[in-house]
Amino acid sequence: MITGIELIKACSAIGAGLAMIAGIGPGIGQGYAAGKGAEAVGRQPEAQGDITRTMLLGAAVAETTGIYGLIVAMILLFANPFI
Amino acid sequence: MITGIELIKACSAIGAGLAMIAGIGPGIGQGYAAGKGAEAVGRQPEAQGDITRTMLLGAAVAETTGIYGLIVAMILLFANPFI
Amino acid sequence: MITGIELIKACSAIGAGLAMIAGIGPGIGQGYAAGKGAEAVGRQPEAQGDITRTMLLGAAVAETTGIYGLIVAMILLFANPFI
Amino acid sequence: MITGIELIKACSAIGAGLAMIAGIGPGIGQGYAAGKGAEAVGRQPEAQGDITRTMLLGAAVAETTGIYGLIVAMILLFANPFI
Amino acid sequence: MITGIELIKACSAIGAGLAMIAGIGPGIGQGYAAGKGAEAVGRQPEAQGDITRTMLLGAAVAETTGIYGLIVAMILLFANPFI
Amino acid sequence: MITGIELIKACSAIGAGLAMIAGIGPGIGQGYAAGKGAEAVGRQPEAQGDITRTMLLGAAVAETTGIYGLIVAMILLFANPFI
Amino acid sequence: MITGIELIKACSAIGAGLAMIAGIGPGIGQGYAAGKGAEAVGRQPEAQGDITRTMLLGAAVAETTGIYGLIVAMILLFANPFI
Amino acid sequence: MITGIELIKACSAIGAGLAMIAGIGPGIGQGYAAGKGAEAVGRQPEAQGDITRTMLLGAAVAETTGIYGLIVAMILLFANPFI
Amino acid sequence: MITGIELIKACSAIGAGLAMIAGIGPGIGQGYAAGKGAEAVGRQPEAQGDITRTMLLGAAVAETTGIYGLIVAMILLFANPFI
Amino acid sequence: MITGIELIKACSAIGAGLAMIAGIGPGIGQGYAAGKGAEAVGRQPEAQGDITRTMLLGAAVAETTGIYGLIVAMILLFANPFI
Amino acid sequence: MITGIELIKACSAIGAGLAMIAGIGPGIGQGYAAGKGAEAVGRQPEAQGDITRTMLLGAAVAETTGIYGLIVAMILLFANPFI
Amino acid sequence: MITGIELIKACSAIGAGLAMIAGIGPGIGQGYAAGKGAEAVGRQPEAQGDITRTMLLGAAVAETTGIYGLIVAMILLFANPFI
Amino acid sequence: MITGIELIKACSAIGAGLAMIAGIGPGIGQGYAAGKGAEAVGRQPEAQGDITRTMLLGAAVAETTGIYGLIVAMILLFANPFI
Amino acid sequence: MITGIELIKACSAIGAGLAMIAGIGPGIGQGYAAGKGAEAVGRQPEAQGDITRTMLLGAAVAETTGIYGLIVAMILLFANPFI
Repeated sequence: MITGIELIKACSAIGAGLAMIAGIGPGIGQGYAAGKGAEAVGRQPEAQGDITRTMLLGAAVAETTGIYGLIVAMILLFANPFI
Repeated sequence: MITGIELIKACSAIGAGLAMIAGIGPGIGQGYAAGKGAEAVGRQPEAQGDITRTMLLGAAVAETTGIYGLIVAMILLFANPFI
Repeated sequence: MITGIELIKACSAIGAGLAMIAGIGPGIGQGYAAGKGAEAVGRQPEAQGDITRTMLLGAAVAETTGIYGLIVAMILLFANPFI
Repeated sequence: MITGIELIKACSAIGAGLAMIAGIGPGIGQGYAAGKGAEAVGRQPEAQGDITRTMLLGAAVAETTGIYGLIVAMILLFANPFI
Repeated sequence: MITGIELIKACSAIGAGLAMIAGIGPGIGQGYAAGKGAEAVGRQPEAQGDITRTMLLGAAVAETTGIYGLIVAMILLFANPFI
Repeated sequence: MITGIELIKACSAIGAGLAMIAGIGPGIGQGYAAGKGAEAVGRQPEAQGDITRTMLLGAAVAETTGIYGLIVAMILLFANPFI
Repeated sequence: MITGIELIKACSAIGAGLAMIAGIGPGIGQGYAAGKGAEAVGRQPEAQGDITRTMLLGAAVAETTGIYGLIVAMILLFANPFI
Repeated sequence: MITGIELIKACSAIGAGLAMIAGIGPGIGQGYAAGKGAEAVGRQPEAQGDITRTMLLGAAVAETTGIYGLIVAMILLFANPFI
Repeated sequence: MITGIELIKACSAIGAGLAMIAGIGPGIGQGYAAGKGAEAVGRQPEAQGDITRTMLLGAAVAETTGIYGLIVAMILLFANPFI
Repeated sequence: MITGIELIKACSAIGAGLAMIAGIGPGIGQGYAAGKGAEAVGRQPEAQGDITRTMLLGAAVAETTGIYGLIVAMILLFANPFI
Repeated sequence: MITGIELIKACSAIGAGLAMIAGIGPGIGQGYAAGKGAEAVGRQPEAQGDITRTMLLGAAVAETTGIYGLIVAMILLFANPFI
Repeated sequence: MITGIELIKACSAIGAGLAMIAGIGPGIGQGYAAGKGAEAVGRQPEAQGDITRTMLLGAAVAETTGIYGLIVAMILLFANPFI
Repeated sequence: MITGIELIKACSAIGAGLAMIAGIGPGIGQGYAAGKGAEAVGRQPEAQGDITRTMLLGAAVAETTGIYGLIVAMILLFANPFI
Repeated sequence: MITGIELIKACSAIGAGLAMIAGIGPGIGQGYAAGKGAEAVGRQPEAQGDITRTMLLGAAVAETTGIYGLIVAMILLFANPFI
């Protein structure tokens, strides 16, 4: 017999997996940033500090949506309000 | 026995996962911005402040749709009006 | 027993998640704008004010469709006319 | 027991979510316009007024299909002729 | 009990949502046109009138398929011949 | 009780929505044409008449497949031979 | 009761909608041709006749697959050999 | 009651619609050819005959797969060996 | 009553439609070849024979996979070994 | 009554159609090769023999995966070890 | 009556078709290699041997994943360990 | 008999597989970074240290979303709170 | 009657087919490497040894994920721990 | 009779196949790195050591997400905690 609470748990496991797919976006974006940063450093090695700072600042912002997905997945797993 | 309220909860868990997929967009976009910013700083290190400000301003706007998704997922999880 | 009103609520939760997927578009678009803006500032730092204004004006317009999605999701959640 | 009128309501909620996906298009398009506008202003700051006007005019036209989607979603929600 | 007329109404609501997805096309296209128009005005501000006219003429044609989708959705909602 | 004629009507409503998705193609294509036209006018404003004529001629041909979709949707809705 | 002939009719309505999706291809292709044609006319306005002729010739060939889809949809609707 | 022969007919109608989707390929390809041809004519109007011949020759080959799809759809509709 | 042989026939009709989708590939590829060929002829009209021969040779090879799909569809329709 | 052997046959027909979809890859790839080859011949007509040989050699390798698909489809149809 | 062994056989036929889809990758990749090789030979015909060797070496490596798919399909068909 | 706890376990296995798909993003992004880094080193070998550091720093950030997916998959497998 | 062990076997056959789809990635990537390698050799034939070594080294790394898929498929087929 | 433990095993086999799809990302990315590396070596053969080291370092990082997928698949197969 499958109870309702177990159906919610099963759907939460699938939902947590779905939420992680959002990681495709930051992965591609930050990789693009890393490549462009390496290219820029190659052209002006003396500006490496500034370039790296700018790149990391931008990548940190891009990271957020990946973290949002992680947060939602974690809530679904450990602080699931439906159970 | 599965009750209606449990079906709503299960669907909300899946809906929260779906809403996070929107994070693909800002992830790619902000990463592009970070890469272009790093490239621009590499060309004109003396303008780093202005470039970073512009980049972060634009990325902050792009962040919004990712945050909208997080808000909807949070409402579905913690302030679900259907339960 | 699942009642019709509960089926509507479950479908509304999924529909709200679907509506947020529209956020992929503005996310990519505004990120492109941010990158191009940062690049332009890097070339002409003295025009930063004008560039940022134009970029934000355009990004604000692009934001609208993301907000439409949020509005529809919010209506589905809090002002659902079907319940 | 699920009545037909409730099935219509549930499908309308899903349909409203589907209609908002159209927002991906204007989001990408208008963001492209914003980026190109910022780039153009960066090259010719003295023509900012003209560039912004053209960009906003074009973006306003692109907005229409996103608004069509909002209209259809709103009709499905608040002026649903099937109920 | 679900009657046939109610099934038609439910499917029409979904069909109307599907028809609005066509809006992705004009949204991207017209945004491209807006960006290219702004770029062109930035290069030759004195030709703004001609550029804008050409851009709007082309965007008006691109609008048509989005409007077709709206028409079909409206017919499905308000002049549904199947009911 | 769902009769066969009602199933046909329901499927026709979905089919009409599917047929409108073809509008994505002309929307992107004509928008590209509009952008390229505006760009060309910006380079040679004195040739605006010729450019616009060529652009509209080509866009008119691209319109056809969108119209085919509208025709099929209209036939499914108003001249449905299956009912 | 759903008879077989009615199932065929319902599937034909869906099949006609599917066949129209082929219109995405010619729509994008012909729009590309229109844009390239307008660009070419902008560069060499005195060759407009030749450019337009070549563009239309090529677009006419691209039209064919869209027309094939229309033909199959029309046959499914009006000359359906299965009914 | 649905007989087997009617199921075959229904599936053939869907299969004919599926086969037409192949038209997306030639549509995009031939449109690309038309655009490149118009561009080439714009550069060397005196070689229009040769360019057009080459373009049409190549487009004719690309047409084949679209025609294959039409043939299979026609066989499924009018010379269906399964009925 | 649906017999097994009729199910095979119905699946073969769908399979034949699926096999034709392979035509998207050669359609795009050969169209690209046609466009590149027309462009090359436009640059060096005196080499038209060689360019056309090379283009057709390559397009003939690309045609093969489309023909493979046609062969499999034909076998499924007329020489179906399962019936 | 559907027997197991008939289900295998029906699935084999679908599997054969699926295997042919692999033809999209070689079709696009070989068409790209044909276009690049025609372009290269247009630049250096005296090297046509070498260019064509190289192009055909590479295209022959690309053909293999299409042929693998044909082989598997043929085995499924004529030498099906499961029947 | 469908026995378990027959279900395994049916799923193996579908799995073999799925495995062949991997052929899309090598097909596109090797075609790109062929095109680049032909282009390189066109620029430096005297290095044809070296270019062809390098191209074939790289294409041979790319072939492997297509062959892996063929191997798995063959095992599923002729050396199926589950039967 | 399938118990609810077993359904949760089965869904968790699928959810773990889904979460790993996020790895497509970092894979493409970091590979782009590696390619750009190698290109930059090739242009300025004396800056190899700086380029590599920048590239690895950016790639490490891009790695995070892949690791998030791994974490969620591991939690689903070994610290599943639903069991 | 279908036993559980047979369901596992059937799902393993499908899972093996799914795992091979990963071959699309290395196929495209290695083909890109082969094309770039051939291009590089065409420019500097005297560096063929170094170019080929670098290309093969990189392609060997890209091969790994394809091999991972093959390993998992092989385990599912011949060392299936679930049977 | 299908027991719950067998359903878990069947879903784990499918989940393992899904996890391997992540290999598409590193495959494309590392192939891009290999191509860029070969190109860079072709331009500066004397820097081959540095270029190769940078390329392999970056590709090793990109490899990780593919390995994560392999790990999860292996755990699902050999250290499945649900059985």
